[in-house]
Amino acid sequence: MKLSHVHGYFILVLQAIFFVLFCVFVRYHPDANARFHPLFNETHFEEKLDKVKSDDPWGHSKMYPMFQDVHVMIFIGFGFLMMFLKRYGLSSVGINFLIAALCLQWAILVNGFFHLKEGVILVNLTALLGADFTAAAVLISFGVLLGKTTPTQLIILALIEVPVFAINEVIGRQYFGAVDIGDSMFVHVFGAYFGLAASLILYRRDASTEKEGSSYQSDMFAMIGTVFLWLYWPSFNAGTAPGDDQHRGIINTYISLISCCVTTYALSSLLDKHKKFDMVHVQNSTLAGGVAVGTAADLMIHPWGAALLGILAAVISVCGYVYITPLLASRLRIHDTCGVHNLHGLPGILAAIAGAVAAALASEATYGISLYEIFPARVPVEGSPELARLQQKMPDLEGGSGLSGSSQALFQLLTLVVTLVISIAGGIVTGCILRLSPLSVLKTEELYEDEKWWVMEAEDDEGHKGSVTIPMADNGAR
Amino acid sequence: MKLSHVHGYFILVLQAIFFVLFCVFVRYHPDANARFHPLFNETHFEEKLDKVKSDDPWGHSKMYPMFQDVHVMIFIGFGFLMMFLKRYGLSSVGINFLIAALCLQWAILVNGFFHLKEGVILVNLTALLGADFTAAAVLISFGVLLGKTTPTQLIILALIEVPVFAINEVIGRQYFGAVDIGDSMFVHVFGAYFGLAASLILYRRDASTEKEGSSYQSDMFAMIGTVFLWLYWPSFNAGTAPGDDQHRGIINTYISLISCCVTTYALSSLLDKHKKFDMVHVQNSTLAGGVAVGTAADLMIHPWGAALLGILAAVISVCGYVYITPLLASRLRIHDTCGVHNLHGLPGILAAIAGAVAAALASEATYGISLYEIFPARVPVEGSPELARLQQKMPDLEGGSGLSGSSQALFQLLTLVVTLVISIAGGIVTGCILRLSPLSVLKTEELYEDEKWWVMEAEDDEGHKGSVTIPMADNGAR
Amino acid sequence: MKLSHVHGYFILVLQAIFFVLFCVFVRYHPDANARFHPLFNETHFEEKLDKVKSDDPWGHSKMYPMFQDVHVMIFIGFGFLMMFLKRYGLSSVGINFLIAALCLQWAILVNGFFHLKEGVILVNLTALLGADFTAAAVLISFGVLLGKTTPTQLIILALIEVPVFAINEVIGRQYFGAVDIGDSMFVHVFGAYFGLAASLILYRRDASTEKEGSSYQSDMFAMIGTVFLWLYWPSFNAGTAPGDDQHRGIINTYISLISCCVTTYALSSLLDKHKKFDMVHVQNSTLAGGVAVGTAADLMIHPWGAALLGILAAVISVCGYVYITPLLASRLRIHDTCGVHNLHGLPGILAAIAGAVAAALASEATYGISLYEIFPARVPVEGSPELARLQQKMPDLEGGSGLSGSSQALFQLLTLVVTLVISIAGGIVTGCILRLSPLSVLKTEELYEDEKWWVMEAEDDEGHKGSVTIPMADNGAR
Repeated sequence: MKLSHVHGYFILVLQAIFFVLFCVFVRYHPDANARFHPLFNETHFEEKLDKVKSDDPWGHSKMYPMFQDVHVMIFIGFGFLMMFLKRYGLSSVGINFLIAALCLQWAILVNGFFHLKEGVILVNLTALLGADFTAAAVLISFGVLLGKTTPTQLIILALIEVPVFAINEVIGRQYFGAVDIGDSMFVHVFGAYFGLAASLILYRRDASTEKEGSSYQSDMFAMIGTVFLWLYWPSFNAGTAPGDDQHRGIINTYISLISCCVTTYALSSLLDKHKKFDMVHVQNSTLAGGVAVGTAADLMIHPWGAALLGILAAVISVCGYVYITPLLASRLRIHDTCGVHNLHGLPGILAAIAGAVAAALASEATYGISLYEIFPARVPVEGSPELARLQQKMPDLEGGSGLSGSSQALFQLLTLVVTLVISIAGGIVTGCILRLSPLSVLKTEELYEDEKWWVMEAEDDEGHKGSVTIPMADNGAR
Repeated sequence: MKLSHVHGYFILVLQAIFFVLFCVFVRYHPDANARFHPLFNETHFEEKLDKVKSDDPWGHSKMYPMFQDVHVMIFIGFGFLMMFLKRYGLSSVGINFLIAALCLQWAILVNGFFHLKEGVILVNLTALLGADFTAAAVLISFGVLLGKTTPTQLIILALIEVPVFAINEVIGRQYFGAVDIGDSMFVHVFGAYFGLAASLILYRRDASTEKEGSSYQSDMFAMIGTVFLWLYWPSFNAGTAPGDDQHRGIINTYISLISCCVTTYALSSLLDKHKKFDMVHVQNSTLAGGVAVGTAADLMIHPWGAALLGILAAVISVCGYVYITPLLASRLRIHDTCGVHNLHGLPGILAAIAGAVAAALASEATYGISLYEIFPARVPVEGSPELARLQQKMPDLEGGSGLSGSSQALFQLLTLVVTLVISIAGGIVTGCILRLSPLSVLKTEELYEDEKWWVMEAEDDEGHKGSVTIPMADNGAR
Repeated sequence: MKLSHVHGYFILVLQAIFFVLFCVFVRYHPDANARFHPLFNETHFEEKLDKVKSDDPWGHSKMYPMFQDVHVMIFIGFGFLMMFLKRYGLSSVGINFLIAALCLQWAILVNGFFHLKEGVILVNLTALLGADFTAAAVLISFGVLLGKTTPTQLIILALIEVPVFAINEVIGRQYFGAVDIGDSMFVHVFGAYFGLAASLILYRRDASTEKEGSSYQSDMFAMIGTVFLWLYWPSFNAGTAPGDDQHRGIINTYISLISCCVTTYALSSLLDKHKKFDMVHVQNSTLAGGVAVGTAADLMIHPWGAALLGILAAVISVCGYVYITPLLASRLRIHDTCGVHNLHGLPGILAAIAGAVAAALASEATYGISLYEIFPARVPVEGSPELARLQQKMPDLEGGSGLSGSSQALFQLLTLVVTLVISIAGGIVTGCILRLSPLSVLKTEELYEDEKWWVMEAEDDEGHKGSVTIPMADNGAR
């Protein structure tokens, strides 16, 4: 049995382990547990019987549509966007499907371990949504390495990346009190630099082959992914925000995306010698605005601020594809198949900086008292007169760290730096593991090639091996 | 005029009949009728004027997103999944579209006849959702016969199947008091065995032809269907459940699907002699978890229970594709184009058994008093002291059948058996009708072939005029 | 630099102008502004902290799923439907993407100018939804001209059409008090005749070329667009309706669409000499029911009324494709690439007439007092005894125009006529501008051709030029 194809056993063993862990640790959250039902609370008996018509007090109904939007982004969005590779389409969507489903299980467990309640992992729709965000980070790293690894290597990467992701997010959100509603730091920056670091270790001179490009049709399939990502990004950025913060998050993301899209087309044409649009930019850079506004999506950055972020993101992203990605490959020995650095990396850093700036400028003048709901670390310390003042209006408010806007901004930047350090370190370690000789087995002609991993129709002798959609006229033997 | 192409007249006549029936019988449900408006209720005048901002007391807003998810599954999911056939893509999505739209009208009428209110059919969003579920059963049967029938035969099948479906569901839900929140018995088992029984009667030795396979591109189109089905299955299973039952239904389905997906990939690789993944399994077996957890999705099967069902479903489904489907065709003379038996049939039976087991084990210890909301047949009988005890907490509760858990489980299994009997009988009768000579007209080369049913660009000798993906050379007569 | 490729500069300049206008004029609506937060209202402090669990008083959660459905229709629906052109797929989805994003920004500004609040444009989810509707009108016009213009010409068309659209809608809704919940007049009729008028001016004899057709694959991509449009049309028609009106809007649209779909297939087959289905009809005419019921979707037209509109729409649309579109091109010098006249034009006029009829027949007998909520112009005049009677039940009700049903119907028809006049005039003016010689630069072979606008892989010599699945293995030169 070829070492490159051990993944079947590997996946089976993993699934068995996940199953055992689910048996031992995972339970329904009370919101989804029939025992903890309002019917037990005698004042809610009538509500139960009329439940379909009365308000849903558990709120999952409000989150569910946004959850499904994010879910579509993970499986349709990422999966189909990566189908631009003309000979790797089945793997792009198919291996994305496998890795994502695996990540979802692993993330429910790992994220759950960081939030154990009496030794068990409670699962509700919010936990499922969190797992989707974690999977996004892994799929972003996958995008850097797309076509150059075996499924086994990708699974190992996922196994390592998910806990490292969780650790980084705990440090950033709980210890540094950073805000990042759209996960531009915790998912996009993290996933991008984890993958780029691994790619550096896994560098191979023959990475750029003829199969690395797209075909007329593969570009069309990829647009399915691009457009669904673009449409649903407001749900990704604002899905976990409450109330009017969520409303603002939708608006900011939408405005950033429409400005980014238009700017992308302008630059794509202007930077081409024949002034033609380039599908690579349309498929990827139009999305950069969603990343760039992610950290600040729920903040009062004003519609012009969202538009500015979209424009800057497009500039950074298109210039990245035109100038930086080739340099990364030729000078820094980092080959980035999908140009992840231009969609998730650099725009993610822009998002973090924008978030820091917005945090520095945030005050009660702009936010009112909701400043302390959005920036919990800025709640005055216990015992201070400022806290007492607020507690007159919010009696349940507990003391916080009393950070100023500038301090919050510094913590935002610190979180960015720590995220970069942790993700790059994680990527390097992972790259070293993946480079171990039993694992690195792909020949040049096996890169970006579906035929290695998928049962495909037998092909005739004219060298269309691996493809059954064949230009027919020159193929009389079919 | 060829008998194979009478469908135009047939469809027109049917549409006219449906229209007349709509005129005579179908009305808006009060929830959608301007006359029965809270404005008439004097205590709600203020609410009406502020309606957009206040809570929507009619609840259609909560159901609508899930309704649309199911709607996408019927038309995108099934339609595109069946596009795997390399020369039948237009028919797969196109005839799916026609048959589904026809079924929706027929189902609104038929389902409505079973729930007449003062002699009229009241239609609201719930009725539309029910029609979508009915259509799903017919499309599942269509999957067994895909490519081997004329449109006329399929329409006749739909006309017969919809009422038989309705009768079976009334027997199961109303007379046996069976629960099946995700319709795994009433839709999946029913649709699969109806279709398989019809296929037995319609057996033809030449059913397996070269066109029965997929091409590189058709496999990619099919993945659009697969992934949308996979993503939205929680809406299918939990859409009609109330409150926290719905929350649990989403979680159970999600967990079953992610375990099923991963297990599918493992087995697909392990059972291949070159250890490669097979698109057939990825396109179909990854979904089996959704079916397998369907009957018990709103029950307290625990996350590990959902994961187990997903794993078992994948095992059954992949083994089905590898071992059973060929046997069905060669030994039992049942040719199953889409392998429906492996996705809807066997996993549906697994769902029914799981539902019975879960029903047997259900008690107030696990469910609290909501046991009686989920299993209405278990409400104690009128006049019993147990009912009186419950009525202290639920004053409006009416007496039920007082079933024990074991009795409920037996009724679940009885429902499965009756569903199998009715669906198989219905399929056999339908097969006999479809076999009548004026109807069975397809030659071997017309199987799985779009050109029979669709206006297509004339192709030139080079095989490219107007068409780029067509086996040209072997079809000079085109 | 070729004049045909100035669009890069043009887009960049426009984006800069939009950005400046956003800076100057656009602000968050109070619903999305942290300052205007219930926390400032002392009675709502508790609500804020429990916000995730309590009811969302701003309602964006209810509208958001429908908003996303419409958003998908604009970008996936229109974009992919237009991919039927076998050599214009990248442009169809790609230029649709660009023009739509540009329209969204322009529409937020223009629509906002008509509803300034203290000199600023307040943006909330409703404003974003309105921008999507405006973009739809422009994309409909684009469909008439698809493949025959440069991006620069399309941008100019969008810049003109958006304000003309807004003016027409203000005249119709505010001055004539017309109702049109699904925008069949304001979007579909308007967009169609604007585009047709422009096409008349831009007529060229060589518009019908070999590339104007579809290929096997391009037809499949187009079905992605068709089916998503068909599924989500109820959101388009009912998205802005309140409460039970919305429920009724969903039901009416759904019923119209299923009848239209079935009738389309019947006629498509019957009108073909070989009785085959025609993808052109399936891709377009199945949707006509959505347009035809648009104006009356929230009215009490009864399920049979919706079904009738669907049937009539299919008849009109299919006959349009078969008989009228060729005549428009050959006799009236109006070349309509997508057959927009048959999907948006004629069915839109049918919608307007149906709306007028329904308005004439509307009375308190059918609607109860909600008559005055649906037809605000029918509220009795200030000071009249009829108003006093209503104010006993609706104390906040202000006086209106006191129109009778017939008067309302006349205003509906007047709105249709004015819409036609304004859209045709706008289209003619636009056509004249687009015809100015620096702009009209396409040669015959450049029509419906992606290669003009997009960076594409070099194609080999084997005559696969114009082939959309580019041969891989036999294309060493790639």
